[in-house]
Amino acid sequence: MPPRPVQGALQEEQVPEALESLFRSVRQAWKEYCQPLKLEDYGLQAAAETSPPKWHLGHTSWFFETFVLVPFARDYQCFNPAFEHLFNSYYNGVGEPFPRPERGLLSRPTLEEVLAWRHQVDDAVQRLLAETNHAHARSIRERVLLGLHHEQQHQELFFTDLKYSLYRNPLFPEYTPAPDDTPVSDRAPPLQWHDFTGGISMLGNDGEDSFVFDNERPRHRVFLEPFSLASRPVTNGEFLAFIEDGGYRRPELWLADGWSTVEQQGWQAPLYWLCRDDDWYQFTLHGLRPLDRHAPACHLSAYEADAYARWAGARLPTEAEWEHVAAQQPVRGQFVDRGHHQPLPATEPGLTQLFGTVWEWTSSAYAPYPGFRPAGGTLGEYNGKFMCNQLVLRGGSCVSDRRHIRASYRNFFYPPDRWQFSGVRLARDPA
Amino acid sequence: MPPRPVQGALQEEQVPEALESLFRSVRQAWKEYCQPLKLEDYGLQAAAETSPPKWHLGHTSWFFETFVLVPFARDYQCFNPAFEHLFNSYYNGVGEPFPRPERGLLSRPTLEEVLAWRHQVDDAVQRLLAETNHAHARSIRERVLLGLHHEQQHQELFFTDLKYSLYRNPLFPEYTPAPDDTPVSDRAPPLQWHDFTGGISMLGNDGEDSFVFDNERPRHRVFLEPFSLASRPVTNGEFLAFIEDGGYRRPELWLADGWSTVEQQGWQAPLYWLCRDDDWYQFTLHGLRPLDRHAPACHLSAYEADAYARWAGARLPTEAEWEHVAAQQPVRGQFVDRGHHQPLPATEPGLTQLFGTVWEWTSSAYAPYPGFRPAGGTLGEYNGKFMCNQLVLRGGSCVSDRRHIRASYRNFFYPPDRWQFSGVRLARDPA
Amino acid sequence: MPPRPVQGALQEEQVPEALESLFRSVRQAWKEYCQPLKLEDYGLQAAAETSPPKWHLGHTSWFFETFVLVPFARDYQCFNPAFEHLFNSYYNGVGEPFPRPERGLLSRPTLEEVLAWRHQVDDAVQRLLAETNHAHARSIRERVLLGLHHEQQHQELFFTDLKYSLYRNPLFPEYTPAPDDTPVSDRAPPLQWHDFTGGISMLGNDGEDSFVFDNERPRHRVFLEPFSLASRPVTNGEFLAFIEDGGYRRPELWLADGWSTVEQQGWQAPLYWLCRDDDWYQFTLHGLRPLDRHAPACHLSAYEADAYARWAGARLPTEAEWEHVAAQQPVRGQFVDRGHHQPLPATEPGLTQLFGTVWEWTSSAYAPYPGFRPAGGTLGEYNGKFMCNQLVLRGGSCVSDRRHIRASYRNFFYPPDRWQFSGVRLARDPA
Amino acid sequence: MPPRPVQGALQEEQVPEALESLFRSVRQAWKEYCQPLKLEDYGLQAAAETSPPKWHLGHTSWFFETFVLVPFARDYQCFNPAFEHLFNSYYNGVGEPFPRPERGLLSRPTLEEVLAWRHQVDDAVQRLLAETNHAHARSIRERVLLGLHHEQQHQELFFTDLKYSLYRNPLFPEYTPAPDDTPVSDRAPPLQWHDFTGGISMLGNDGEDSFVFDNERPRHRVFLEPFSLASRPVTNGEFLAFIEDGGYRRPELWLADGWSTVEQQGWQAPLYWLCRDDDWYQFTLHGLRPLDRHAPACHLSAYEADAYARWAGARLPTEAEWEHVAAQQPVRGQFVDRGHHQPLPATEPGLTQLFGTVWEWTSSAYAPYPGFRPAGGTLGEYNGKFMCNQLVLRGGSCVSDRRHIRASYRNFFYPPDRWQFSGVRLARDPA
Repeated sequence: MPPRPVQGALQEEQVPEALESLFRSVRQAWKEYCQPLKLEDYGLQAAAETSPPKWHLGHTSWFFETFVLVPFARDYQCFNPAFEHLFNSYYNGVGEPFPRPERGLLSRPTLEEVLAWRHQVDDAVQRLLAETNHAHARSIRERVLLGLHHEQQHQELFFTDLKYSLYRNPLFPEYTPAPDDTPVSDRAPPLQWHDFTGGISMLGNDGEDSFVFDNERPRHRVFLEPFSLASRPVTNGEFLAFIEDGGYRRPELWLADGWSTVEQQGWQAPLYWLCRDDDWYQFTLHGLRPLDRHAPACHLSAYEADAYARWAGARLPTEAEWEHVAAQQPVRGQFVDRGHHQPLPATEPGLTQLFGTVWEWTSSAYAPYPGFRPAGGTLGEYNGKFMCNQLVLRGGSCVSDRRHIRASYRNFFYPPDRWQFSGVRLARDPA
Repeated sequence: MPPRPVQGALQEEQVPEALESLFRSVRQAWKEYCQPLKLEDYGLQAAAETSPPKWHLGHTSWFFETFVLVPFARDYQCFNPAFEHLFNSYYNGVGEPFPRPERGLLSRPTLEEVLAWRHQVDDAVQRLLAETNHAHARSIRERVLLGLHHEQQHQELFFTDLKYSLYRNPLFPEYTPAPDDTPVSDRAPPLQWHDFTGGISMLGNDGEDSFVFDNERPRHRVFLEPFSLASRPVTNGEFLAFIEDGGYRRPELWLADGWSTVEQQGWQAPLYWLCRDDDWYQFTLHGLRPLDRHAPACHLSAYEADAYARWAGARLPTEAEWEHVAAQQPVRGQFVDRGHHQPLPATEPGLTQLFGTVWEWTSSAYAPYPGFRPAGGTLGEYNGKFMCNQLVLRGGSCVSDRRHIRASYRNFFYPPDRWQFSGVRLARDPA
Repeated sequence: MPPRPVQGALQEEQVPEALESLFRSVRQAWKEYCQPLKLEDYGLQAAAETSPPKWHLGHTSWFFETFVLVPFARDYQCFNPAFEHLFNSYYNGVGEPFPRPERGLLSRPTLEEVLAWRHQVDDAVQRLLAETNHAHARSIRERVLLGLHHEQQHQELFFTDLKYSLYRNPLFPEYTPAPDDTPVSDRAPPLQWHDFTGGISMLGNDGEDSFVFDNERPRHRVFLEPFSLASRPVTNGEFLAFIEDGGYRRPELWLADGWSTVEQQGWQAPLYWLCRDDDWYQFTLHGLRPLDRHAPACHLSAYEADAYARWAGARLPTEAEWEHVAAQQPVRGQFVDRGHHQPLPATEPGLTQLFGTVWEWTSSAYAPYPGFRPAGGTLGEYNGKFMCNQLVLRGGSCVSDRRHIRASYRNFFYPPDRWQFSGVRLARDPA
Repeated sequence: MPPRPVQGALQEEQVPEALESLFRSVRQAWKEYCQPLKLEDYGLQAAAETSPPKWHLGHTSWFFETFVLVPFARDYQCFNPAFEHLFNSYYNGVGEPFPRPERGLLSRPTLEEVLAWRHQVDDAVQRLLAETNHAHARSIRERVLLGLHHEQQHQELFFTDLKYSLYRNPLFPEYTPAPDDTPVSDRAPPLQWHDFTGGISMLGNDGEDSFVFDNERPRHRVFLEPFSLASRPVTNGEFLAFIEDGGYRRPELWLADGWSTVEQQGWQAPLYWLCRDDDWYQFTLHGLRPLDRHAPACHLSAYEADAYARWAGARLPTEAEWEHVAAQQPVRGQFVDRGHHQPLPATEPGLTQLFGTVWEWTSSAYAPYPGFRPAGGTLGEYNGKFMCNQLVLRGGSCVSDRRHIRASYRNFFYPPDRWQFSGVRLARDPA
């Protein structure tokens, strides 16, 4: 999901102390995330849709400088006026962005300069937040909160982009060794079906309690037919059965555009899967490792998720079905703070892993909710501009920040995209 | 819409006499449609997604030969076994199709041979329909009816593909002269808003009375918020105001993928519009003609339709909203039998032109209705395979067969497609 | 070779009676060449670098209208002013040419119109030639002669382009059946080496006796080291041995750019070769036929010619070596008048098949001779403009007009081009 | 020029002390060249045909390890076996090379590891050279000498590749500030023509005195017609007059392939030229600087060099003409040791700047000399494989190593290539 923030209303996180604490915590998380990198890694960009770590570090400072400091901080001096162009992602209202596929060519500014910039921005924002009687205090807090959610999105992209970059190196470098507490996978609980009766249901979130993006609004009614939802995501072992049954060679299992992609890209397995001497391996942020058959399948495109579902006699859930179920569950699961940057197997029966572990593709096109209204100004300039050609994913992943995810959260990617931690939970109609 | 037929249930048109009459009528309509062509025109293919007239003539015979005659007609001899490959469109179950972009390279079979093939197929199908006590009489009638709806789709594509091919010739050849009874356009009635209260509504059609495609099934409930719908499609004159207001140069009006397309394709106006010495012209099947400002705007992509709507402070309707309104209206309007292959202006106030004239883009992604079940066998092999990346259009156009269109009919194209007779009717939320 | 005529000096063919006779003969040859075509074939264009038959017919009329009739014929009325744009090939001085890859989209003008145009041009040119006391009689004769050589080039391209178009049709239509007098191939005479001592040699032709293109001028001295030349071109059987020895899988045999092409295009044999059930076939203008192992190998790119030579311990000749030898030989061989549009085996020992049968790739880049001077005006506008990135071929082919070929004639194509009747004669350095 | 070394015979540089000294000097030159870089710069690769600095450092070690140490050094342990694949450039005999366009994705090995590898290789080679009674001492010395010339080629590419990478950064970083001793350009001496009578001339170099590449062999006779050569390369000011005369908008001045390139690439000036507010600037390794009108024009493609020559009523020299003249001159000029990495103006009249400053495009296709024989083994595997589609450049540039250049030296690039320090010296035929 190309992060696209929107102005939110005042919520719990906007209480000054909470916000300052969140600011420090989110901004400093980079330090831990970047610690294992070599300086040479900071410039890697292996695909047009990914960005180098250094660019993420710069862009998230650019956001605060552009939308908070320049408009509201008296006498603020931009660190380097040229950075406005270099670190803009897509806000046409802020001028022409630097071409996305060339971010890896920016050896300058150096990491040292980018970190100095971060330091200046952090200081200035904290000083500004301390001005509690600032005439625009509320706007400032709203924008800072938005900036932090924007930053959490980039922190997730940091991991997914980095994984893809390291994968392109035949040495398969690891980001970190696998944590010592990696559970010894026994077996995933059997897949069970949970039935729901449908009817009128509420979809969306007006953000009365906590921050929401504008694409979650307004909360509104939808009508659901009865449906069943699987207790957990599809596992690697289950997906392997699809492969071994000729899944990637049978056009009748695929959407037409999916089959074209399979043929053009030569897909034979999910991204990061490698078969060597008849054994399957997965490239992970902890290096190349044997495929864990009990862990959720991951790095699937929507085409692969859909083909698997058809093969299995099921279908993808709609986002309304997913949220109907998830809204009744606590936000609990494997997030980035678990320190294991690869999906771990489910350990308990029942409806599980809705949150964290892997994003779950839905069959719903990313579209405005009825009554959706874009916010004003540059920050809201693009609220709806990605609402075409993409599908919604739900639930967060093992590299998401736990504080960033909720039942109403809508992530979105193009159907062929595979570099996110995206998996599949099956749904089906009642027999 | 790449025509994709599906097995229907028995309906009114399947009464033997009605079906035989429809068969003769639909199959012979080609004669009138092709009459103005030169032999050299039959091979034209100007884009991968269009097909030459001769190919449409062959493919629609192929359909009856493959799905009706070969399985059901005793001792039927295929006209030429090689044609199975050449005139297959995308049914993988029938073998590998000939590459779509190369259809224009098939100078052989000649038109004479293709017409001889049609003749053989027509005779054989009619003989088969006359066997009323055939063990598979019902299946035969179902498949013939399906084949005729398939053929009507190709007859519409004949016009849209031909128009594109002729347009690529700098001589701007006309298909036919404009009919003498072309109305002198006075002015379109003013655009009015019709309000609807929403609530639970029924969407889809189970085909109890007449033929439907499987993508219209099952009829099901949806919840609609209150909405308003425009009384008529946007006119050329209204769209021109968008252009003159810089519509094609303002990224904030466009979906992100739309803006990329505008930039990459250098779009400055709808397809077929030409500006010469400050006057606007439109290429039509009746040659290059001054732009009629009162006629509905046509040959818009969904991106242009959406950008116009945003500029106008409105939005595209969803397909549920559109059908909710259209289901209450008679199927009346400008269809191909009007003989004017270019949209004519609305002539009366009130909710008008819902059917015929121009297809109307909706904001709804083409997706399965809840409970959708694909039919079995090759005919149903691809029922759902196009349900990704496309948007639904509704209502038919000035080159559709009137007998082919109904309120529940779902056409679908990719958002950037412009070569269909596609326009836009605005919707909006209540103030 | 994209035909590119140049103004020549007065020669034997310019004697009025000879010229009038040649004009009638060359212009009417089309009638015989086109006789086997179906009307549907006239519009075929299977690649950007080939042209449809109808376009060749139009373009060769355009040449006389543009460069002879408009400047010199009193009161001449152009057949259709729009044709100047449609049938211009690349003369920027005559206005922007119509895009080359879209020539197949011109269903109009119809063949009937193009033939009427030819008729008008033929009449007008013949009337003009009859004005022997015209103030510009000599210029007219020079340009008409040039136009006829230009037309002979297009007549060869008619065959090579048509062959490629028919080949893209899976029905493999034949242009004509193989002539009854096709020799029963016995075996090609063994390849022998003819040695030449080199030294100062003359290269080029100043056109004192007959028409020459400007790229053959001026006649000049070159220094040749001793060399040997093969008695005949490489045969299909010899080339097959290269294939069976892994020729298309061994990068060390190929030029670097050649190997890239092999990999990107997936080449495994020359163009038009097909292997079915372990037997080799060749597509020819007389349909698909078993590979004749004794006939010269044909439709080779320069890369394949060069790789074969390296595999055989030899090399390609330079154009100076080739001409040094050929200048001593009569222009005799299999040309288009033989009526067999496929290379026939050599039948006699000794230095043979230098002229006709197959064009022979040389290792010489197509470049200006020392002292080369472009002619003035539009006709000479592009004299040297193709002198980059192409290699010289020599000797003519089985679809060349005998009257068009001479020892000094320089044809040229890009190294990867394969759709001409291009083969290879080996050369080598003395042991 | 993609460096492609060949086995040479024993020459002066192979005297043990000379060779050891040369080895130390060439290998250590990197230290000076890399000193101004930031660590982030070492991974930059802005185009498929360029390589990152770190890759050049690794590849040149790979060369010695693969071709000298592994075959000849007892008990030598490769630094890391995976590097054989990663740092191979194109030697298919040594296994499949890592994809060239992805060299910038190798953040690992880190610079530190690559330098450790260099250290190990340097030590081992020097120990091996010291074994003067080694059974293969002569072969070792030959290969080491070859490796050093190979390394000098990569040192030049280091500068040209780096310049291109820095240019793609909108900050226009400088490699180093311009040296203090940059001459204040007064004016270039007027262009004069030097006449040569031609006749039989010797071309090539058999390497009796010093190292030569195999493409310079054998020395052989050619016949030259009389010609004139310009006293110095074309200057920026002269090239600007071509631009101002519409040079980039007039197709008649260009080779056909050149004009296609101008249109497709949108060329309006040489690479690195920028026009801002009507003033011209050049990006240089010393940052963005005002265009020096008296310095030689540089970063021209052969197309631009040729178009300029045609506009000026002249032509490019052949490589035989160039070498005929240069063989009589001392190898003197602006090389990399001058420390100014941008062409400086000529300062004296007479035939000048033949060596150094800018490479000079010739009209000669890069082709084998008569009697050329490729060396055996992997080192010679590709001797002739680049001899197609490229043109020869002569004389070296301001970033060449002075010890690497001689009159017979043949550099070669594709006609559209512009990122080398390539300029143009005019030639012409006698009036």
